[in-house]
Amino acid sequence: MHDLYLEDIHVGEKIIVGQHVADKEGMIEFARQWDPQVFHLDEAAAGTHHDGLLASSNYTMCVVTRVIGLNWNIRTFGVMEYKEIQVHAPVRPGDVLTVSMEWVDKRASRSKPDRGVVLSRIEVRNQCDELALSYISTIMMMKRGDA
Amino acid sequence: MHDLYLEDIHVGEKIIVGQHVADKEGMIEFARQWDPQVFHLDEAAAGTHHDGLLASSNYTMCVVTRVIGLNWNIRTFGVMEYKEIQVHAPVRPGDVLTVSMEWVDKRASRSKPDRGVVLSRIEVRNQCDELALSYISTIMMMKRGDA
Repeated sequence: MHDLYLEDIHVGEKIIVGQHVADKEGMIEFARQWDPQVFHLDEAAAGTHHDGLLASSNYTMCVVTRVIGLNWNIRTFGVMEYKEIQVHAPVRPGDVLTVSMEWVDKRASRSKPDRGVVLSRIEVRNQCDELALSYISTIMMMKRGDA
Repeated sequence: MHDLYLEDIHVGEKIIVGQHVADKEGMIEFARQWDPQVFHLDEAAAGTHHDGLLASSNYTMCVVTRVIGLNWNIRTFGVMEYKEIQVHAPVRPGDVLTVSMEWVDKRASRSKPDRGVVLSRIEVRNQCDELALSYISTIMMMKRGDA
């Protein structure tokens, strides 16, 4: 677990952040609270049109921030934008999800010398190395400066 | 609570789906599980750079699907894409969030007669009618057909 400042971002670098097991109980509990559609909750109902239970897309997005948060203390002022969040394949109970990030761009703020904007491409792949979800994240990060 | 099929989507219509109170305990519990960055967890730490505790952007996205799921049974094959997820203002403890949707586009599938693609613009506003989060959602919906 380490702090990550603007100076630590090297554009072009691709990093495997960590893994998360999409356990069935956790997926259903998440859906019950946050995305209560029947095909996220009920195996039988999901069977008809979805080939069985599938995770909420929000669950998969949350897996990303969980894995990042358990590994890095990102010194940020917050998320500005997520772009192009694409669902490529469903997440199923038991899937082992690997979260990776590629730093796509960074630029220092012109008006505020203590910060900068960082773009990264995030990918979530399952145990078959199949892409499940991807997106571009734009966040405002702090500079380490002289601290 | 009613079923929503492709035929129920009227492009141009804007609907207030419902509300959600961003209670502090819920925000922190969410962050502990899904976005464990210090400024989502710790009031004092968040004070320095964020003017106090702020919700995870994922929390706000989850509020959207929760409010939708509690009000509608969307007959969908799933999310295809989220675009332009923009964070306009932070969500703070106690905020009363109103979720609205505008149907932006729909088109029947050419290859599969039982479904179609629907685009909607989603907005989350706080109790001051300030826009907190917006995005464009693309989902694949079922046709009611003759059922």
